[in-house]
Amino acid sequence: MNEPARTHDDIAAEAARLLDGVRASRPLVQVITNLVSMDIAANVLLAAGAAPAMVHAPQESPEFIRKVAALVINTGTLTQAGAEAMEVATIAARTHGVPWVLDPVGVGGTKFRDETILRLLRHRPAIIRGNSSEIIALARIAGLTQEAGGPRGMDNVHSADEAEASARKLARHCLCTVAATGAIDLITDGQRLVRLANGSPLMERVTALGCALSAYSGAFLGLGADPFSASCSALAAYAIAGDMAAEGAKGPASFRTAFIDILFTLSGEDIVQRLRRG
Amino acid sequence: MNEPARTHDDIAAEAARLLDGVRASRPLVQVITNLVSMDIAANVLLAAGAAPAMVHAPQESPEFIRKVAALVINTGTLTQAGAEAMEVATIAARTHGVPWVLDPVGVGGTKFRDETILRLLRHRPAIIRGNSSEIIALARIAGLTQEAGGPRGMDNVHSADEAEASARKLARHCLCTVAATGAIDLITDGQRLVRLANGSPLMERVTALGCALSAYSGAFLGLGADPFSASCSALAAYAIAGDMAAEGAKGPASFRTAFIDILFTLSGEDIVQRLRRG
Amino acid sequence: MNEPARTHDDIAAEAARLLDGVRASRPLVQVITNLVSMDIAANVLLAAGAAPAMVHAPQESPEFIRKVAALVINTGTLTQAGAEAMEVATIAARTHGVPWVLDPVGVGGTKFRDETILRLLRHRPAIIRGNSSEIIALARIAGLTQEAGGPRGMDNVHSADEAEASARKLARHCLCTVAATGAIDLITDGQRLVRLANGSPLMERVTALGCALSAYSGAFLGLGADPFSASCSALAAYAIAGDMAAEGAKGPASFRTAFIDILFTLSGEDIVQRLRRG
Repeated sequence: MNEPARTHDDIAAEAARLLDGVRASRPLVQVITNLVSMDIAANVLLAAGAAPAMVHAPQESPEFIRKVAALVINTGTLTQAGAEAMEVATIAARTHGVPWVLDPVGVGGTKFRDETILRLLRHRPAIIRGNSSEIIALARIAGLTQEAGGPRGMDNVHSADEAEASARKLARHCLCTVAATGAIDLITDGQRLVRLANGSPLMERVTALGCALSAYSGAFLGLGADPFSASCSALAAYAIAGDMAAEGAKGPASFRTAFIDILFTLSGEDIVQRLRRG
Repeated sequence: MNEPARTHDDIAAEAARLLDGVRASRPLVQVITNLVSMDIAANVLLAAGAAPAMVHAPQESPEFIRKVAALVINTGTLTQAGAEAMEVATIAARTHGVPWVLDPVGVGGTKFRDETILRLLRHRPAIIRGNSSEIIALARIAGLTQEAGGPRGMDNVHSADEAEASARKLARHCLCTVAATGAIDLITDGQRLVRLANGSPLMERVTALGCALSAYSGAFLGLGADPFSASCSALAAYAIAGDMAAEGAKGPASFRTAFIDILFTLSGEDIVQRLRRG
Repeated sequence: MNEPARTHDDIAAEAARLLDGVRASRPLVQVITNLVSMDIAANVLLAAGAAPAMVHAPQESPEFIRKVAALVINTGTLTQAGAEAMEVATIAARTHGVPWVLDPVGVGGTKFRDETILRLLRHRPAIIRGNSSEIIALARIAGLTQEAGGPRGMDNVHSADEAEASARKLARHCLCTVAATGAIDLITDGQRLVRLANGSPLMERVTALGCALSAYSGAFLGLGADPFSASCSALAAYAIAGDMAAEGAKGPASFRTAFIDILFTLSGEDIVQRLRRG
C-alpha cells in the first residue's frame, strides 16, 4: 500500500496517454444524466473522441449495457422513474462488470435524493465525482462522518481541504475512487491522494460542466484504466482545457464554446506543460 | 393608487440596483421548466450571478422550496407528471411564502395546457411572463375577456398594444404583475404600466429565450423586490443585453453566445445609457 | 416510372426554392424528439425560418396536430411513455393527413427500441431519415434484408454504398422516401436515387446534428413538397451549411455556432454554387 507518491510527471504522462487512448479506441459510454446536462455531456464526450449513448429506459439498460465500456449516472433533475432507471442500469453494470461513475448531484438536498443515492451506492461505483460540498454531504448521509454542511442548492461552498477527510472515508468505505472538485480538485482511492490546481472560475458559470466532467471521466474509465488513474487523468485534462479556454473568453458562453473546441484539440504536450499540483 | 408615473431614470436606476443585488446575494432559484429551455435557462441564471436549481420531483419540492428565494414554472413540453409536479411546487411555494413566476407557454393551444395553467393560476403567481399572444390567450381562458387569438404554435403574433387590456385585466384579477413581451415589452400590476423598447429581432430566433427571461425574472424576484419592480428591471436588463449582443452577431447562434456573455458583464451604466421607453 | 435522372441543376434549383419557401411560409413543425436534441433541433428550425413546437403529450397531440404542417418523430432517449406519445402523435398525423418524418435513433440496439420503431412504421412516415447504419438495421428488423450490422451505439459505421440496397427496399416497402446520411448522403423513394457529397466530418462531433436534420427536413416537408424533393433539398442545404461552417471552425463548438448562423443566412446561390453530387 505504501507506493511512492506520484510525481507531476507521472500524472501528466498518464493523462496524455489516456487522452490519446480515448481518441484511438472511441469508448462507448452510456450516460444517464439530468435534463440540463444532456447536450453538454454528449458534446464533451464527442469532442473527446468518445461515443456517448444517452440510453436510460429500464427496458433497455440490461441489454444495452453489454455493449458499453462504461456507465455514468447523474442524479440531477431526479424523478421516481429516473431513480428506478438508474438502479436497473447500475445493477446491470455490476452484473456485466461494466465500471461506472456516480455523480451525486443535489445530495443532502432532500430525503428522496439522499435515499436514491444511498441505494445506488450499494451497486459499487468505480468513481464518485462530485464537488467538495457534495462529497461532504455524501459521506455524512452514508454514515461515515458527522460533518454538517453540503451544497447550497447545487453549488459548491467547500474547499478541497474541507472535503479531504470525507473523500478518504468514502473511498475506503465504497472501495472506489472519489474525486472532489472545485478550485482545487482532490482525487483519492483511500490511500493515494492527488491535488490538482488547474481550471477557471468561469467553469462554475456554465451549467452542467461538472456533470459533463463525470461523463468525461467515464470515457477514461472505459479504456480499462484503473479508476484512480482514469479520474486523475480526466480531471487534469478537463481543468487544463478550462485554463486554456479562459484565456480568450469574454464570458461564460464564449468560454463554453472555446472549452469544447479545446477538448477536441488538446494535446498531451498541453497537459505536460500546464499541469499544476494543488 | 395614484402614484406618479415612473420616469426613465427611476426604472434604469432600480434595474441597475437589482442587477447588482443579484450578483451580491446570489439568490437560489428553483426552476421547473420545459425540456427545450433547461440548458439556456440555467446558463442565463448563472451568467446573471444567480444559482439555478432545476428541481421538479413532487417528492422534493415541498422540502426543497424552503431553501429557495423564488420559484419559476414554465408549461412548455407539458406532461401529466409535469403538471402534477408544478401543482405540488406552487402549493409549496404559496405555503412557505416563496414568490413565483408563471410562464404559460402554449396557452390556448390545447385543452390540457389550458386546464393545467388555470389550475396553477389559483396558487397566485407574483409575476406572469408571456409573449403578447400568450397574455391575450390567458386572459381569455381565465374568463376575463372575449378577445379571440393567441399564439401561433409557440410564436408571438400580437403587439403590446393589442395585449394591453388583457394584461391589465389579468393583473387585477390575479393581483399580480403581468409582463407581455415582444418588440415592445409591457409590464403592469393593474395600476402602473411601463413599456420598454429595447431588444433585437434575433431574440425570437433563439429557442427558449423567453423561457430563460422568466427564469431571469425569478432571480430579481428572489431578492425580495416587489414583483412589478423585479419584472421591469429584469426585462430592461435582458432586452438591453439583447441590443448589445445583436451588434456583432452573424446569426442566432453567435447572438446567443454574445447575449449570455453580456448578461455576465452588463453594468448599471449600460442600462442607464441604453434604456428606451416604448 | 422511368423519369429522367435529376441533374445537379434540378436539385440545386429546387433546394433554393424550398429554402426560400420555408422562410416565406414559416411552417409550424411539431417535434417529438430525444432529450439531447431538444435545444439544437428547435434552434435549427428557428434559424431556418420555421416555427418549432416541441409538443408531445398524448393529451395534446390529437388536438395540436391539426395546426401543424409536419410532424417529426425521433426515438432517441426512448421511454415507455415516450413510445406511447409517439404512437398517439403518428396516428393523429395519419388521421389528419399531416406528413411526418421518422428518425429511428438507436434502431438495432435493443428489442424495446426495435419494437417501438416497427410499431411507428405502420403509421406511414413520409420520410425516414437515419444514418447509413440505422437504415441497414431498420431494413433488417423490418424483415426486408438479412444484412447484419447496424450502428455502434448511436454511431454510423457504414457507407452510403453499403446502405443502398436497404434504403431502396425500405422505401419500396414503406412507400416513402428514405435518406441514409453520412459522408455521402443517399436519398431514394425506391425508384429515384440521389447521392450528395457535401458536409464536414465535424458534423459527427456535434451531438444531435442528425436529429436536427430530421427536424429540418420536416420544415421542407411542411411546405407541401413531395417527400423526395423535400428530403433532397433539406439534405443539400444542411450539408452545404456544414461545408461553409467548417471553413472557420476551431472545433465542434465553434462549428456548431457557425453552422446555425449559416442556416439563418444561407442563400439559394450558395446551394447552386456548392452542391456536389456523390
